[in-house]
Amino acid sequence: MGNSIGKIFKLTTFGESHGAAIGGIIDGCPAGLKLDFEKIQKQLDRRKPGQSKITTQRKESDTVQFLSGIFEGKTTGTPIGFTIKNEDAKSKDYTHVKDTFRPSHADYTYHQKYGIRDYRGGGRSSARETACRVVAGAITQQILATIGVEVQAYVSAVGSVNLNTCYTNLDLSLTETNLVRCPDVAIAEQMITTIEKTKKEGDTIGGEITVVATGVPAGWGEPVFDKLHADIGKGMLSINAVHGFKYGFGEVDISSSKGSEVNDIIIDESGKTKTNFSGGIQGGISNGNDIYCEVAFKPVATIMQKQEIIDVNGEKVEIKGKGRHDACVVPRAVPIVESMMALTLVDAYLRSKINKI
Amino acid sequence: MGNSIGKIFKLTTFGESHGAAIGGIIDGCPAGLKLDFEKIQKQLDRRKPGQSKITTQRKESDTVQFLSGIFEGKTTGTPIGFTIKNEDAKSKDYTHVKDTFRPSHADYTYHQKYGIRDYRGGGRSSARETACRVVAGAITQQILATIGVEVQAYVSAVGSVNLNTCYTNLDLSLTETNLVRCPDVAIAEQMITTIEKTKKEGDTIGGEITVVATGVPAGWGEPVFDKLHADIGKGMLSINAVHGFKYGFGEVDISSSKGSEVNDIIIDESGKTKTNFSGGIQGGISNGNDIYCEVAFKPVATIMQKQEIIDVNGEKVEIKGKGRHDACVVPRAVPIVESMMALTLVDAYLRSKINKI
Amino acid sequence: MGNSIGKIFKLTTFGESHGAAIGGIIDGCPAGLKLDFEKIQKQLDRRKPGQSKITTQRKESDTVQFLSGIFEGKTTGTPIGFTIKNEDAKSKDYTHVKDTFRPSHADYTYHQKYGIRDYRGGGRSSARETACRVVAGAITQQILATIGVEVQAYVSAVGSVNLNTCYTNLDLSLTETNLVRCPDVAIAEQMITTIEKTKKEGDTIGGEITVVATGVPAGWGEPVFDKLHADIGKGMLSINAVHGFKYGFGEVDISSSKGSEVNDIIIDESGKTKTNFSGGIQGGISNGNDIYCEVAFKPVATIMQKQEIIDVNGEKVEIKGKGRHDACVVPRAVPIVESMMALTLVDAYLRSKINKI
Amino acid sequence: MGNSIGKIFKLTTFGESHGAAIGGIIDGCPAGLKLDFEKIQKQLDRRKPGQSKITTQRKESDTVQFLSGIFEGKTTGTPIGFTIKNEDAKSKDYTHVKDTFRPSHADYTYHQKYGIRDYRGGGRSSARETACRVVAGAITQQILATIGVEVQAYVSAVGSVNLNTCYTNLDLSLTETNLVRCPDVAIAEQMITTIEKTKKEGDTIGGEITVVATGVPAGWGEPVFDKLHADIGKGMLSINAVHGFKYGFGEVDISSSKGSEVNDIIIDESGKTKTNFSGGIQGGISNGNDIYCEVAFKPVATIMQKQEIIDVNGEKVEIKGKGRHDACVVPRAVPIVESMMALTLVDAYLRSKINKI
Repeated sequence: MGNSIGKIFKLTTFGESHGAAIGGIIDGCPAGLKLDFEKIQKQLDRRKPGQSKITTQRKESDTVQFLSGIFEGKTTGTPIGFTIKNEDAKSKDYTHVKDTFRPSHADYTYHQKYGIRDYRGGGRSSARETACRVVAGAITQQILATIGVEVQAYVSAVGSVNLNTCYTNLDLSLTETNLVRCPDVAIAEQMITTIEKTKKEGDTIGGEITVVATGVPAGWGEPVFDKLHADIGKGMLSINAVHGFKYGFGEVDISSSKGSEVNDIIIDESGKTKTNFSGGIQGGISNGNDIYCEVAFKPVATIMQKQEIIDVNGEKVEIKGKGRHDACVVPRAVPIVESMMALTLVDAYLRSKINKI
Repeated sequence: MGNSIGKIFKLTTFGESHGAAIGGIIDGCPAGLKLDFEKIQKQLDRRKPGQSKITTQRKESDTVQFLSGIFEGKTTGTPIGFTIKNEDAKSKDYTHVKDTFRPSHADYTYHQKYGIRDYRGGGRSSARETACRVVAGAITQQILATIGVEVQAYVSAVGSVNLNTCYTNLDLSLTETNLVRCPDVAIAEQMITTIEKTKKEGDTIGGEITVVATGVPAGWGEPVFDKLHADIGKGMLSINAVHGFKYGFGEVDISSSKGSEVNDIIIDESGKTKTNFSGGIQGGISNGNDIYCEVAFKPVATIMQKQEIIDVNGEKVEIKGKGRHDACVVPRAVPIVESMMALTLVDAYLRSKINKI
Repeated sequence: MGNSIGKIFKLTTFGESHGAAIGGIIDGCPAGLKLDFEKIQKQLDRRKPGQSKITTQRKESDTVQFLSGIFEGKTTGTPIGFTIKNEDAKSKDYTHVKDTFRPSHADYTYHQKYGIRDYRGGGRSSARETACRVVAGAITQQILATIGVEVQAYVSAVGSVNLNTCYTNLDLSLTETNLVRCPDVAIAEQMITTIEKTKKEGDTIGGEITVVATGVPAGWGEPVFDKLHADIGKGMLSINAVHGFKYGFGEVDISSSKGSEVNDIIIDESGKTKTNFSGGIQGGISNGNDIYCEVAFKPVATIMQKQEIIDVNGEKVEIKGKGRHDACVVPRAVPIVESMMALTLVDAYLRSKINKI
Repeated sequence: MGNSIGKIFKLTTFGESHGAAIGGIIDGCPAGLKLDFEKIQKQLDRRKPGQSKITTQRKESDTVQFLSGIFEGKTTGTPIGFTIKNEDAKSKDYTHVKDTFRPSHADYTYHQKYGIRDYRGGGRSSARETACRVVAGAITQQILATIGVEVQAYVSAVGSVNLNTCYTNLDLSLTETNLVRCPDVAIAEQMITTIEKTKKEGDTIGGEITVVATGVPAGWGEPVFDKLHADIGKGMLSINAVHGFKYGFGEVDISSSKGSEVNDIIIDESGKTKTNFSGGIQGGISNGNDIYCEVAFKPVATIMQKQEIIDVNGEKVEIKGKGRHDACVVPRAVPIVESMMALTLVDAYLRSKINKI
């Protein structure tokens, strides 16, 4: 259970890190959308391993093969099935974890839950699964583009190197100009240095991604439980390694703010507000202003340092990371965050079509 | 849409702040649970308005009436229908907002989404709806008690008064000894002072609640999208005024932490870890350690200061809060946060029953 | 579980036959619908007990009280909560079934499933629950009316008295002119006689209802599993006592028909077909022609004759029906069948809003 | 939408008749089930085209490739992704239907719903999709086998050749001894003759399948909307060409039966009833007796006779079936019916795990 997301635009994924392939089914994509396959691949390329010196060196082309739901380049309204082959899996790197539980990994929890687990590369718990999200995310970004909505994410923190600037003061077109995907080029350099230094130490480090959606009209999102930000939050928290989520409030601390300081006052009939501490959402429904939020990632659990752990028999053993891993996930997670935002927004958009009689 | 939560244990709520009643239906409650009705009412009392000098003075007994699903004091497995009457609604206090959009309220967004809104007391967007969550939450806390799981929340910040102590170093039995529901009595005094001062200024202030679940066995939570913390996060973010969510990591900053510092190492066969930065969840599945998270609330939007806004015709008008409002919501939100945690955990618990053949 | 129906327009019901009240929540009703409350009550009156000499004599006013989701007579898009009080429950009539399992009733199955049951009046398994469906059904009929869709049901068989005429050759405006709700007045008389005779014998008898939906445009219904007729069929089969369902094919036997005889040929651009054996649905999607189907009801299980059964201890006991029961349910089931058709169609209608980009 | 079935054990399918492949994802399969892959293939072989002289001659090996969710031969609890390649698609046979709407096919309805359709082989509306159901069905049959539940279907009517014998008087082990899958060998011969004769005439004919589930314990199925027979009925009605469904009542007509004739009296503590008109279900919940139902199939719409139809421009054209088609679908539909029964039962079984506290 739990491998689907979305109520109307629904993505279901399958696949393990070292199985034959990963893939998914998109059900609920409206018919008649002309797909730009290059753009889909481009988003996959931004997520794929081995793309630069600061990412894991596993080599995957991450080529998506569409099997259905598309006819003469357009969506037909029927489910879009797709697969991505696992090409460079090195399962041998994982025989040493077959009988042990790596720290802060899902080895123990899968073992306890299911009584059986595919230990190779973390199996289903591997972030490799997120490639499927990017496929669906790229399609939803194309749906959003037809109505003028754009989703852009960028790295806003790596370790203690923090951007500390609101997105409104940044030139997001610079995001792709550097390996770490931070629109402030000088800060980006510091981030890259931090990642390289951390990697040399055999360690890993956390980070943060900010994501902005512009052009969202008022009226998306449902009261009470499916508030737009609650669904966005769930989407983000479902990404591997994410531990924190905040929407709106810019550089301001939520808890210590005062009503008189953070109330957003509407200044014209379009619903535009003077400030945007609300992050474009009030009462769980979009208000026509920019939607933005921050997503905090913990450091990757696999480190190249020795750790003393226990095995399935409760015996103490020493472990040291093998395989190819990222020292910091945020540069590759940028398209994943964009995808979860786009997926959630499209679902909200489609749901909003029945607001009124 | 969006008025239900839970996949197996499902709560659906209805009701506006100033309608005849609010209420809900719980579908999926296992049969044979002997209910302690006093405990349910006690949780409602912790949430209800007018309970102390630092809360709104609206007077509601918040008495729940159960209409079905219970026979001779026990649940029967059939849906539990319930209502709570609205007794002290003063709709006149809201005639001035009929044609205006209050800052940082849901007036504008409901107007845009539905083209019609019950403006009295915020209608459906009122936090009054959360009383229904507390009814269901109190029932789920009783389900959890049968298997040794306990959920406790407390206020960890009011404005800049921050507890800054991990729950493991607190005596949570002290939470109810003060009006603000903070287990550190000295800090609680500062919080109360802050709320009173803020109220005098006609202003409002944000805050933070920490919630802890003990006794959760390993194996609850579903990969991939319905990760336990993603569902908990969604539940929390669906509470009125919540803008931020973080799980695990105690007083440590997520993004700037290193793998070598925050990896949780299992130290015995029960799965107990030396540290618990993971917050009791790995790969979206509980690992048998305490689950804990922090929930950040923005300040209440209704302030007793003048604000210049626009009305439905785009004309500028001056508004000043009327009615009875909280200067800070966190003291009353403690049982709501507990409820969302308990609801999510029970749903995960019931889902976990099909893990294995 | 299982107390909700509909994906977008969702009805959830609660309540036992002899509890304080039954009721429900409608989530997903579009905003801005002006409700005709008299029409809702009129549908309830067609279903309510005690309406004529051929129905059970239990007296219920079946007055619905709406608690939310309606403002100044219009739907607001928020959930519509409602209750119907149980006024004339005579629980004493059921003390004799407390420890026995009545034949062809749900006593045994509830007992086995839940280990506890509210035996009074059949508890949750009572057809009293269907009053809630009629409330929602009457609302959906009003939604359908705004787009020219009409749903009409009538009794087409009582015991061996069978109408044997296609609806196209009947004047459906005559349905309400007689107690049994059959548009052929002469046949109706025979049906009434049959019911009265059966009642005198202390027996019960089955029957059949035909339902027709006119004005449904092409394009409603979803491939593959949620085919329009599959969802209609599920809705009908979920009505108490229904054992059979057939759509299309008029008086023709499905299995023995030949392709050359029953193929429906489109004769103009509106999609109109020369014949309509398909019952207005092809590939699970409406084709613009009339939708019609037949629903077969078994005889009521409670008979006023002695039957030898076993009790919870396996001991043989003799039972004879007490309480007030229908000798044939179909006259009262007509608005229920209409309701399930209307509910399913509205859900399909709302889902169809996202067919195309 | 609508491409998933099941609440806990959920199958989602994708794929068109002439696309690269069809396939699906099973989410919610319990971990630890040792799969018998030969049995899965055997069920696919019973459904596949080209298996005998009375089926379509399209040649498909219908080999299923599993991509995930299985490790060392056992299910892992993670989603099972699978594909089946389309090998013998002859799309040229369909160029003549590109701009026409075949009678009683889904051409027109897909065109109206989506504005675009993959016309080759009927696209998504092709019964080829049901191969995916058989994959999942075969897995669920293996789950059921672990708890002693068996599902068996057989052909009970072809045209006017009707078995007219209750399953209790048949030897179901004879079902596979003849091409038409009827356990009465003499009747089977008549059925085969009928199909061959019909085929020679370029015509098609309807039929009926009966399915029996033995060993189902009491307590499966949910009141009120998700009654066990309502979910079974929906599953059956979602199979291509199915127009009718009946559960219980054997050879007896539902509507004309009397309560005194068809009431099922429990005769011992196991819940066994003297008769079984209820078809093993009371109040929507299994009662421990055999579950059985009948499913009626209309004749295949593609006939080899000339029919005058209209094209997309409303012009009259003459059409005659091309391609390779069945004259009667029921022999190949037997494993499909079994699959839908097994899928529904497993979902009900898993849901029943939370009946009691």
